[in-house]
Amino acid sequence: MAEFKARVYVTLRPSVLDPAGVAVQAGIHHLGYTNVHSVRIGKLVELTLEAEDRTTAAHQLAAIADQLLANPVIETFHIDLDDVATPSAL
Amino acid sequence: MAEFKARVYVTLRPSVLDPAGVAVQAGIHHLGYTNVHSVRIGKLVELTLEAEDRTTAAHQLAAIADQLLANPVIETFHIDLDDVATPSAL
Repeated sequence: MAEFKARVYVTLRPSVLDPAGVAVQAGIHHLGYTNVHSVRIGKLVELTLEAEDRTTAAHQLAAIADQLLANPVIETFHIDLDDVATPSAL
Repeated sequence: MAEFKARVYVTLRPSVLDPAGVAVQAGIHHLGYTNVHSVRIGKLVELTLEAEDRTTAAHQLAAIADQLLANPVIETFHIDLDDVATPSAL
């Protein structure tokens, strides 16, 4: 078994309104940075998992993201998967 | 003026407890993926900004993240900055 570190980025689909993003953009403009626009807020989920190999880990992560982390009706996700050195004791 | 796309990743400092991450991890285990652990939830802020050059954009983003997007007491941030082709009309 190898250990993998993964980051799942969950973002709203472009067609979905993002009131939180609009509010943050207003805050940024209030700070004086009126050159900032198109602010969108997403989620970032960092996790560690053990799997036989990279392919298994990627499949499991896609299933987890699809079933639990993202709402596929309004959100999409992207997964970054990094290998972690397996402890020599295993 | 050039246009830049940026992604700001805001994550809890390792010493800070993350009850939302614990809850998501319980949900993932409930789905049957008990090989997943160390789940932490962060924020992802995507935005576009216009700036003279890359250095100015990076400085402004660091100021925005430090003042507004992240709470430096409990969170850290990381910024990815991408160039966007400037429209030829400008």
